[in-house]
Amino acid sequence: MRTLITNGTVLSSTGATPADVLVDGDTIAAVAAPGFFTSGTDQRPDEVFDAVFDATGKYVMPGGIDAHTHMEMPFGGTFSADTFETGTRAAAWGGTTTIIDFAVQPKGGSLLSTLDSWHEKADGDCAIDYGFHMIVSDVNDTTLKEMDSCVEAGVSSFKMFMAYPGVFYSTDGEILRAMDKAAEIGGTIAMHAENGIAIDQLVAKALADGKTEPHQHGLTRPPELEGEATSRAITLAGVTGAPLYIVHLSAAQALSAVAEARDTGQNVFAETCPQYLYLSIEDLAAPDFEGAKYVASPPLREKHHQPDLWRGLRTNDLSVVSTDHCPFCFKDQKELGRGDFTKIPNGMPGVEHRIDLLHQGVVAGEISLARWVEACATTPARMFGLYPRKGVIAPGADADIVIYDPAAHQTISAETHHMAVDYSAYEGMSLTGRCETVFSRGSVVVDRGTYLGSAGHGRFLARDLCQYLN
Amino acid sequence: MRTLITNGTVLSSTGATPADVLVDGDTIAAVAAPGFFTSGTDQRPDEVFDAVFDATGKYVMPGGIDAHTHMEMPFGGTFSADTFETGTRAAAWGGTTTIIDFAVQPKGGSLLSTLDSWHEKADGDCAIDYGFHMIVSDVNDTTLKEMDSCVEAGVSSFKMFMAYPGVFYSTDGEILRAMDKAAEIGGTIAMHAENGIAIDQLVAKALADGKTEPHQHGLTRPPELEGEATSRAITLAGVTGAPLYIVHLSAAQALSAVAEARDTGQNVFAETCPQYLYLSIEDLAAPDFEGAKYVASPPLREKHHQPDLWRGLRTNDLSVVSTDHCPFCFKDQKELGRGDFTKIPNGMPGVEHRIDLLHQGVVAGEISLARWVEACATTPARMFGLYPRKGVIAPGADADIVIYDPAAHQTISAETHHMAVDYSAYEGMSLTGRCETVFSRGSVVVDRGTYLGSAGHGRFLARDLCQYLN
Amino acid sequence: MRTLITNGTVLSSTGATPADVLVDGDTIAAVAAPGFFTSGTDQRPDEVFDAVFDATGKYVMPGGIDAHTHMEMPFGGTFSADTFETGTRAAAWGGTTTIIDFAVQPKGGSLLSTLDSWHEKADGDCAIDYGFHMIVSDVNDTTLKEMDSCVEAGVSSFKMFMAYPGVFYSTDGEILRAMDKAAEIGGTIAMHAENGIAIDQLVAKALADGKTEPHQHGLTRPPELEGEATSRAITLAGVTGAPLYIVHLSAAQALSAVAEARDTGQNVFAETCPQYLYLSIEDLAAPDFEGAKYVASPPLREKHHQPDLWRGLRTNDLSVVSTDHCPFCFKDQKELGRGDFTKIPNGMPGVEHRIDLLHQGVVAGEISLARWVEACATTPARMFGLYPRKGVIAPGADADIVIYDPAAHQTISAETHHMAVDYSAYEGMSLTGRCETVFSRGSVVVDRGTYLGSAGHGRFLARDLCQYLN
Amino acid sequence: MRTLITNGTVLSSTGATPADVLVDGDTIAAVAAPGFFTSGTDQRPDEVFDAVFDATGKYVMPGGIDAHTHMEMPFGGTFSADTFETGTRAAAWGGTTTIIDFAVQPKGGSLLSTLDSWHEKADGDCAIDYGFHMIVSDVNDTTLKEMDSCVEAGVSSFKMFMAYPGVFYSTDGEILRAMDKAAEIGGTIAMHAENGIAIDQLVAKALADGKTEPHQHGLTRPPELEGEATSRAITLAGVTGAPLYIVHLSAAQALSAVAEARDTGQNVFAETCPQYLYLSIEDLAAPDFEGAKYVASPPLREKHHQPDLWRGLRTNDLSVVSTDHCPFCFKDQKELGRGDFTKIPNGMPGVEHRIDLLHQGVVAGEISLARWVEACATTPARMFGLYPRKGVIAPGADADIVIYDPAAHQTISAETHHMAVDYSAYEGMSLTGRCETVFSRGSVVVDRGTYLGSAGHGRFLARDLCQYLN
Repeated sequence: MRTLITNGTVLSSTGATPADVLVDGDTIAAVAAPGFFTSGTDQRPDEVFDAVFDATGKYVMPGGIDAHTHMEMPFGGTFSADTFETGTRAAAWGGTTTIIDFAVQPKGGSLLSTLDSWHEKADGDCAIDYGFHMIVSDVNDTTLKEMDSCVEAGVSSFKMFMAYPGVFYSTDGEILRAMDKAAEIGGTIAMHAENGIAIDQLVAKALADGKTEPHQHGLTRPPELEGEATSRAITLAGVTGAPLYIVHLSAAQALSAVAEARDTGQNVFAETCPQYLYLSIEDLAAPDFEGAKYVASPPLREKHHQPDLWRGLRTNDLSVVSTDHCPFCFKDQKELGRGDFTKIPNGMPGVEHRIDLLHQGVVAGEISLARWVEACATTPARMFGLYPRKGVIAPGADADIVIYDPAAHQTISAETHHMAVDYSAYEGMSLTGRCETVFSRGSVVVDRGTYLGSAGHGRFLARDLCQYLN
Repeated sequence: MRTLITNGTVLSSTGATPADVLVDGDTIAAVAAPGFFTSGTDQRPDEVFDAVFDATGKYVMPGGIDAHTHMEMPFGGTFSADTFETGTRAAAWGGTTTIIDFAVQPKGGSLLSTLDSWHEKADGDCAIDYGFHMIVSDVNDTTLKEMDSCVEAGVSSFKMFMAYPGVFYSTDGEILRAMDKAAEIGGTIAMHAENGIAIDQLVAKALADGKTEPHQHGLTRPPELEGEATSRAITLAGVTGAPLYIVHLSAAQALSAVAEARDTGQNVFAETCPQYLYLSIEDLAAPDFEGAKYVASPPLREKHHQPDLWRGLRTNDLSVVSTDHCPFCFKDQKELGRGDFTKIPNGMPGVEHRIDLLHQGVVAGEISLARWVEACATTPARMFGLYPRKGVIAPGADADIVIYDPAAHQTISAETHHMAVDYSAYEGMSLTGRCETVFSRGSVVVDRGTYLGSAGHGRFLARDLCQYLN
Repeated sequence: MRTLITNGTVLSSTGATPADVLVDGDTIAAVAAPGFFTSGTDQRPDEVFDAVFDATGKYVMPGGIDAHTHMEMPFGGTFSADTFETGTRAAAWGGTTTIIDFAVQPKGGSLLSTLDSWHEKADGDCAIDYGFHMIVSDVNDTTLKEMDSCVEAGVSSFKMFMAYPGVFYSTDGEILRAMDKAAEIGGTIAMHAENGIAIDQLVAKALADGKTEPHQHGLTRPPELEGEATSRAITLAGVTGAPLYIVHLSAAQALSAVAEARDTGQNVFAETCPQYLYLSIEDLAAPDFEGAKYVASPPLREKHHQPDLWRGLRTNDLSVVSTDHCPFCFKDQKELGRGDFTKIPNGMPGVEHRIDLLHQGVVAGEISLARWVEACATTPARMFGLYPRKGVIAPGADADIVIYDPAAHQTISAETHHMAVDYSAYEGMSLTGRCETVFSRGSVVVDRGTYLGSAGHGRFLARDLCQYLN
Repeated sequence: MRTLITNGTVLSSTGATPADVLVDGDTIAAVAAPGFFTSGTDQRPDEVFDAVFDATGKYVMPGGIDAHTHMEMPFGGTFSADTFETGTRAAAWGGTTTIIDFAVQPKGGSLLSTLDSWHEKADGDCAIDYGFHMIVSDVNDTTLKEMDSCVEAGVSSFKMFMAYPGVFYSTDGEILRAMDKAAEIGGTIAMHAENGIAIDQLVAKALADGKTEPHQHGLTRPPELEGEATSRAITLAGVTGAPLYIVHLSAAQALSAVAEARDTGQNVFAETCPQYLYLSIEDLAAPDFEGAKYVASPPLREKHHQPDLWRGLRTNDLSVVSTDHCPFCFKDQKELGRGDFTKIPNGMPGVEHRIDLLHQGVVAGEISLARWVEACATTPARMFGLYPRKGVIAPGADADIVIYDPAAHQTISAETHHMAVDYSAYEGMSLTGRCETVFSRGSVVVDRGTYLGSAGHGRFLARDLCQYLN
């Protein structure tokens, strides 16, 4: 099966160039000057190739990599609403062709059996390729030994929590211990950096004062406590030499800590998410419990953080944009927290709209085309050991390709989105640009509004180590 | 003429991938999976293509871009020793396939007639492609109007000097005025950032104290005064909105100012040079006037600046490595300064060894392969409006390609180098790696120790604006 | 003549304590617990002492030291409106018992003959004691030698200008040279830190654009250019080792540079002025040329700088509050600049209201009582070599004392103030607190609204070196 | 009883002045110009006053305030070796006339009953006046309510520990809770800022690796973890608005965090101790278990921290010098940790030598005389609500006075010191300067090498709030 994508503008992390892309089976066979593949012949492309896509006026870009999703994740007695099947299908709709989800070690459980469980959940269900990070919630001798096996099994990043005491929370001693191990084996520590112990005190005080509405979720998790935890994680990583990746950075204070560490050359990286770029704590204050739709951690911040985050994206102090996709339906799930905001499941849907939302930043002049591709595809590939298999339009790479129409228009709505959740955080938002055709390893999964993918097409990706380490 | 480079590892600013490169005429026609171009046929490559280069075990990388050279530059009554002919030939030997040299506006002269003069100097002489920056040494109404014409003529960057009062020096008012214009037209201000007024006072004091040896060149230009001027240039650029590119950054203090500005998202960029990474003020203190060989401005610094500069290269606070190639022979030229260090022509040779010297940083683990390519080729192309024509191995790009043997060994010596200067600043230094074959727009100019280029092959490059602007 | 001040609260730079103060002739003889001086006797204080002041409910504080005034200063063909006689009288009304004025070296003139001229101006005219700083506007061999003589003559601080090219402006080379000398002899360099060269360019542009109103004075002197010059002065001082005192700091950018330098332990100090704490660029924009009343350099800033300056006062990054008193009448003087803001004489009146205006900061909780005294009296005394003769209520000190009524009320107005200028920058402002009685070397110069001083009472103060040097 | 101290140089936090001091009973009655008290009479001082001390050539300074001592403190099954009786006697020998010791709340205990216990320990035993800080080791509703009562009882500062998990350690939530209360009532939180949780992990690793010698105490408590905890404490204090006082700051990293916070105007203060200024981790590495003598927390640091700490003293980022006096005898006490460094009681003797050791800094030019007095007496008085009763030579103040001979010489030795501990950390160190006479509330407790004090003379000091708050 040979497919030609012709007349498009191929995007990379350094710029844009007119070129034709030839896909042969799963991978990209060649990238060539426009017309090259039929030059010197009398044949039309469609006579030579099994399929031809005319990308005139379109971008041809590497499929997106969402390095932070939570499909069917157990949380507080319920599960995030998207299964690997529905979630990866929605991702594909939005031009994301790889997700890296999180396997969640239970307290007392083993990393490897956890990994087995997550393989079982995902295997045969995914529309696109996927990898796993491992959430380490129980640091002990066995866990540490298993970290080696995880790296061998292609799971080279380990997420820890400075938040959620009693659930995922690790103490600074446990973090230090895991970081020591990570430094030894080259694994990356991905960190949820909020001071959960201090937050619990603020939460207790709010509840004691009878403050129970969703808005309190934001007020009890002030940005200073994200900044503090980020600084602390950076110090601990510095003591051990472990690479550190701050997940879902939302606050200017945390950005400032990351920027300072990066200036010193420490192996510190960070991602932000579209919700922090576009939404704010004002959404959390929506009346009639509507704010619950926006409950995620870290919480949405005051609007003045947004320009700082955009600037961080430009300066590369924020290297990646992921979604932290973790959808819970408003009905029955978010509603668990009526009368007590601490019972609202934490998480928001988003896997479908990352590429499009970031494209608005291109349209608005916040970031360049090259930076869009870099933050959404190339950098996550390099950060998480998938490059050059993923994240780039180049010969030998997996043919994960998006033909993107920058001039199309669409409106986000829960009625039309493909995520298995009953609301959208961006309901009614008008967007410029849309994925026209999406390839996963050479197969067309979405084409001009039609889903052509299949559960089980997506394969597990054994990942290498981070490629940014000094 | 179709040339195949096969079996190599193609390098980019994001990584390395095995691929074959097909050159057709001046440009790259296609990049493909190894074997692609003869797959499905019975023919051997050499039966299909006009020329085939087997790059097994070699890197195939974009030709280097040296954004800072001074060929046959008038300075203090003499000229830098390399003509455009000898200098570009030496560059080619070292894998550099583009230089951006400096046209020097004389006081009272016009920018456009200056440009004409420099075209005349270079035209028909160059082995490789070349562009020009414009040195603005006389800011007035006419000059400012001509800046528009320069940009139209493909000269989009304007160098100014905070050093050399009475020669190239511009006052802060003149700088502000030129920056205002640059901000208006999108031009970049390239800045020699040393506080020349203060330095002149230190120089006068040294001379008054009878201190005349070359070492004084370093002692009278302390790093604090580079840091100061860098900060000042950044402030002036901030007031006007002009993009700023700090040339030949040598001091930790200046790096710190650049890093701080970049964290705020200001359009501030910097280059360093190999001499600042490898040599030090101790070389300036060499006895018997040998130190004169190392006289350049800013001066070589104390060794403790070197790890800071390497770190800056890793963090991208130093985005580019150029050479500031400005050779003067020891005999008759450097010797003009015996007994008075201020009469030593300022400058060092280097255009031939930049790629090799930086490769030592790869070997030593200071920078990655991707970063090597980025700092030597991709970033200068993007910074100075040459991308994607230059700086990348991609279809449509000029076929400026280096086949680099990372396992070769060589020793630097004035006896064997190709620059028209009678000494080397790196005499006797052993290197790992060497350019094996160098293409300029599809033509082989150097191959396995033989020079095959020709004066006049190189063409003037009309450049676009900087591609990094926020 | 022995005078007792009894029942008051004596203020110092560390706090407040109830105590009686006994003045004997020019100096303070003793400070004692309340009632001490007549304890063990049957006599009433008025039977024992020549005069008794009951300070019940009042503060007894050291007389203020205004380290920055310009009496009868030549400027642009006119003179500041207050003579030493009128200006020091107004100072006394406001509780200031020492001024340090500026002798202005003309280009081509000598420091010592300048000093002679200023002695002549002031001698016999002053109501209170006075010292001089020397404005160095012509750095040459003679000037540098005379700096020694100045220090011997009790003039240990030398003011230089990075602003006003063609008038007082010194180049960075000249500054470096004078700083070298200052470092050698322990003198302090006081700096007007604005980048005058860049400002002149902005001014020329404004005038060329037909922008001539007073508001332009502020717009053409942006705070960034004060921050830049401050940083530059700090660097030059660091290269030489000279103590540096930034005069009339007005901008957050400059404060930030000072704070950073002070954190490193460099001998860098700064003063601000009441006008920067209370007025803003909005005043400069007043219609009908009224803005001219507020033309001074640096200009009044946007209001958001004010809380930064108050914070700097609290953190001691701003160590002193002076007035930069340099009054020009609106009529005939300020009016010189109608139609061309560059012709408006630069300066504002203020010597009379410094202590009162800062007391509003005490009332508002911005600073403590101790800090008020420290910034207005104790620190200037230590900074400029007058301590313990001035700046403190202690035995042996000159009896420069203010009895301050913190509960009094007054309204500032040109109709009632004592400065020889036809407007007030604070017209109509209501104040809490007022000087009730003011002593200069034991003599009552102001008492309950009556002026009792005399021209010629004030004597020249030969000052020692700065007492803060590390 | 009236005592005259005549002919001395009276020191304050702002300078030195010749003056006579008259003590009447417990307090200072008057400070006057030399000779004042007998001027106008024919009498000699010794005819007029009950006692006369001739301080010719001596300093007359406020008695020292050591804000950090631990007398007879329970620690790991033993007690610190000095009782209130021996410890305060030793303090008096060294010119310290006030200590602020720590009452230690046991887990489960009440603050008020703790305070009662400590009153019982100290009452009737002390040679000099004393106050208490309260160590809060069990944060709960009762504790929080008792904080009000503590403030009313004159205990306005509350110490918490981020170190020593399982002993004094408080979680960030508990700290936040106590800070909230402190902010409400104006109390100061004094913080032991080391990340004890992370340290415990490093300790466990060292022990697991068989590393048991005293040197490990330093290696397992790296300065980064003090810097981190200091930053965290600052953030938590910022969230709540509580004043924060960092105790025994030892590391440049922590100083940097404090300086940054102070620049922003936050109510953050810090003390260091003589051992961090003069001793280093090399002492901890002394062979034959001698290093155990230097085991305290935070540990002694590498020598390069010392100049940073001296600089911090100069810049006032370190406002106070205390001793953290907590002596354990080498024999039987320190020896508990042979074979396991974690069992070495933490603490060093020092209360006797603070004033003298800091005087060496004056002699060496590190700090001024004024700064010596400020850091050792005036600032601790203001910081902990004792001013103007303590910390200053002024009428009305307690007559806690030291006559200091700056020209005397002494050598520190355990054989001659007065602390109840069998070694000195400064054994054999030669000092310039010595306390000649020490007064506590008007009584002579030490005079020319004779102890004249008595247990029980010292009284409890009910303290006000910190006087530095913005």
